[in-house]
Amino acid sequence: MKLYNFFRSGTSHRLRIALNLKGLKPEYLAVDLRREEHLCAAFKAVNPQGLVPALVLDDGEVLIQTPAILEWLEETHPTPPLLPADAAGRARVRALAALVACDIHPVNNRRILETLRHQFGADEAAINAWCGRWISEGFDALEALLASDPTRGRFCHGDRPTLADVTLVPQIESARRFQVDLSRWPRISAIDAACAALPAFADAAPGRQPDAG
Amino acid sequence: MKLYNFFRSGTSHRLRIALNLKGLKPEYLAVDLRREEHLCAAFKAVNPQGLVPALVLDDGEVLIQTPAILEWLEETHPTPPLLPADAAGRARVRALAALVACDIHPVNNRRILETLRHQFGADEAAINAWCGRWISEGFDALEALLASDPTRGRFCHGDRPTLADVTLVPQIESARRFQVDLSRWPRISAIDAACAALPAFADAAPGRQPDAG
Repeated sequence: MKLYNFFRSGTSHRLRIALNLKGLKPEYLAVDLRREEHLCAAFKAVNPQGLVPALVLDDGEVLIQTPAILEWLEETHPTPPLLPADAAGRARVRALAALVACDIHPVNNRRILETLRHQFGADEAAINAWCGRWISEGFDALEALLASDPTRGRFCHGDRPTLADVTLVPQIESARRFQVDLSRWPRISAIDAACAALPAFADAAPGRQPDAG
Repeated sequence: MKLYNFFRSGTSHRLRIALNLKGLKPEYLAVDLRREEHLCAAFKAVNPQGLVPALVLDDGEVLIQTPAILEWLEETHPTPPLLPADAAGRARVRALAALVACDIHPVNNRRILETLRHQFGADEAAINAWCGRWISEGFDALEALLASDPTRGRFCHGDRPTLADVTLVPQIESARRFQVDLSRWPRISAIDAACAALPAFADAAPGRQPDAG
């Protein structure tokens, strides 16, 4: 397997965590978004959408879109499980993950912020306010959902990491980068600490990747 | 089952199509986004995130986040299947769906456009340009992915509708609303026509809902 990714990309970070949890070690191929390598013909031949991450299997099949790759990983490498066994639990974990993957991350990613800068003249304070707003609204909802689960353990769902934690932790990392004060969300902060104690999460951190800098 | 939704919400539209395909007929409860009913305490008691749709099961369980609800529907009501049987096919269908659900829809939804209007002074031409850009970039990638599949049939994947079509059709509806010329994407247009011929899709259209107007 080959993993095309970028150390600071939140979706790449998610996938690195899941691969680590599953004990998989694909070859790491850095795509430098700062140099717009994701928009070059060489990478677009891998993923026509020009987005990282992409996971290339040994048979040449190319997997794109992190939520889809995570489900593929779960189906083809079921141990350890990253989804609960019951349908209601699975719906809950997937909802927590989708809240981040659909409602927070996409509106704060690089192409959107570049457009706000160039089309609407947004300065860095306006960018931080934009990102802070969507992160805060999303984290408020997430914290309320976590608080409403009386059976919750140390992670988003139960006492083992799931796809919800895999998706949440990179968003917390991004919130820090946009100077969002995380102390408002004690449950999210506690989950972050529980995850950081696991090598699969710690080793996937942006600062530990070969292209970090 | 009770379905909290809004006729013109793209995620509500997705879920209506899937429920129709599965032969399920939940009670229709309209949440009028124009009157900000989704932000009222009554609805936030159902979904703390204040977003439609939400599906309330007969045992009181509340399902939120459309990608999660669609997977729950597929697991609990497997006939007819909306995902292929093989892991590679499932990854492909989920990737096409996620391309729309993560990279197109979230950046064009109501709360984002309202913020562009109020924070950045965007007028209607600027709003249409913003939406048109993300729809066009996404549809360019989707068309390329569809073209690269030599086994593709009348729908996004094969000759039966899948979660990819369920997610794509409401985005096409939205593209029309933002005056995007769809003739650039012949494969997407053909899939739209194939879906429109199916009652499950036709009956889910925004204009056919009780709150349409």
